[in-house]
Amino acid sequence: MTAVTIVTREDVERAASRIAGHVRRTPVAEVEPGLFLKLEGMQHSGSFKVRGGFNRILAAAEARPLPEGGVIAASGGNHGMAVAYAARALGIRAEIFVPEVCAPVKVEGLRRLGAHVTQTGAVYADAYEASQKRAAETGALEIHAYDQLEVAAGQGSVAIELLEQAGDLDTVLVAVGGGGLVTGVVAGLAGRAKVVAVEPERIPTLHRALEAGEPVRVEVSGVGADALGASMAGRLAFATVSGQEAGRFSSVLVTDDAIVEARRALWRDHRVAAEHAGAAALAALRSGVYVPENGERVAVIVCGANTDPATLA
Amino acid sequence: MTAVTIVTREDVERAASRIAGHVRRTPVAEVEPGLFLKLEGMQHSGSFKVRGGFNRILAAAEARPLPEGGVIAASGGNHGMAVAYAARALGIRAEIFVPEVCAPVKVEGLRRLGAHVTQTGAVYADAYEASQKRAAETGALEIHAYDQLEVAAGQGSVAIELLEQAGDLDTVLVAVGGGGLVTGVVAGLAGRAKVVAVEPERIPTLHRALEAGEPVRVEVSGVGADALGASMAGRLAFATVSGQEAGRFSSVLVTDDAIVEARRALWRDHRVAAEHAGAAALAALRSGVYVPENGERVAVIVCGANTDPATLA
Repeated sequence: MTAVTIVTREDVERAASRIAGHVRRTPVAEVEPGLFLKLEGMQHSGSFKVRGGFNRILAAAEARPLPEGGVIAASGGNHGMAVAYAARALGIRAEIFVPEVCAPVKVEGLRRLGAHVTQTGAVYADAYEASQKRAAETGALEIHAYDQLEVAAGQGSVAIELLEQAGDLDTVLVAVGGGGLVTGVVAGLAGRAKVVAVEPERIPTLHRALEAGEPVRVEVSGVGADALGASMAGRLAFATVSGQEAGRFSSVLVTDDAIVEARRALWRDHRVAAEHAGAAALAALRSGVYVPENGERVAVIVCGANTDPATLA
Repeated sequence: MTAVTIVTREDVERAASRIAGHVRRTPVAEVEPGLFLKLEGMQHSGSFKVRGGFNRILAAAEARPLPEGGVIAASGGNHGMAVAYAARALGIRAEIFVPEVCAPVKVEGLRRLGAHVTQTGAVYADAYEASQKRAAETGALEIHAYDQLEVAAGQGSVAIELLEQAGDLDTVLVAVGGGGLVTGVVAGLAGRAKVVAVEPERIPTLHRALEAGEPVRVEVSGVGADALGASMAGRLAFATVSGQEAGRFSSVLVTDDAIVEARRALWRDHRVAAEHAGAAALAALRSGVYVPENGERVAVIVCGANTDPATLA
């Protein structure tokens, strides 16, 4: 029997101290009385992902000197950008593996951040496997997109900030892909607010895992696939959230239409840019999937803004 | 000899109380240590202009019942949108006069907000004159884009918020068109921070007025013309800022290139949408026209985000 690792409030507090000064304290907007948007798309590299990236690297550097091979990750999306950003900021080498289908504009973006990019394999899983093989050869520090304690703990620092900025909250809505962010948020809040985990209907990784009693593979499609498209919930996410009391955590699904509508509304009503994944949590509110009670203080993490602005309006 | 009216801190405080609950408390982002962006593009209608619009209407309603003709303004831009928004929110009639060249998309936007739109005259001045004539017939409350005490005082509420949000500041940079915003900000800060008024080189209304010792007509052109394109500084603005001590106020000019660069940087580095006018104040910092001292705490008002998002990147 394997010991089950979960992320704790202490992990998140340590992460928050460690990465302070490296990440931005993104602003919170109270857009109507009791409704707060945490504008995490304004974070370095355009998403929350640098929080985990910095924490993973800095935590490793506390234990021993970083390997000469630097850091390595597989991702053509926000995680790759975040790792490349954090590595550059810390002056270390980054290798990023992306599948051959990765859009040239994304590869270019990674290279502009100084990363060494390898395009290999037909799909993400192939690129990931190649990155693991390469890490074994070079000794580079692997940075997983969600299923590592320091990564999830780093993401959770957003929740500590949020409590400081918005004061007491009843509920925090957060989008879920592989589950790094929701894990960190659950740990960071440590019961101070209820967490609602929001997934697209077409990528219900955590939802299905909670139904099945363990992470299970799901089909991935729809507008959230580029940033929320993990095909299975992380073991760390599953272990951390499945231990929550019923009233403190829930998992809901939203349609792609609701995500598209919420993203448009963020631009139209607030001039906030969000990628689809960044609008998914708000979609649960706007589409009535989650209905707050009268006077409930609710925060929504708008977690990323890496999007073509031409598609906002 | 005419008595010179200036806007005072008390005018701004009264305005701030009056419009509380009608306008948004827009967030402030500390994007690097000691550099704060006031994200006023997230305001209702996409710019600070609703602050003055609400204050003008609510102040008038305190004195006597609002006229049946409602309110009237001339503007195809942010001021028109703001007046239409405020009137709709308060359930009163709004008439907006725009020149015949006004883009159909802007006329449509005003109509969607419930305004009665009249397109008349070749240029803005003609539309403005027609609106005055119409106001004389209907008794509607005229809302000037900048040269009215309640309008400027309302805009100044942004400065009171900013001090509450960012704490002590040394300097506030603010873009100038006709001067309503800078007037309110100077009055609202009342010496608590130095004000740097930023204008495009190609629309130097306040700069020339201060040189000439009175408002003078200037040629209007360049990227800021749609939102900063007043051809003369307001009398109220001139009177309010020309009374400032030398060390507490300065007027600077920025190139169109610097404005374009600052707007791109806001998107690229922060995922903040701004129209050109909204990026003008930041342009003074980024282009080195205004150079803060070591440790100086500087705030930049990003005053509007009514822009085609396709042009952000």
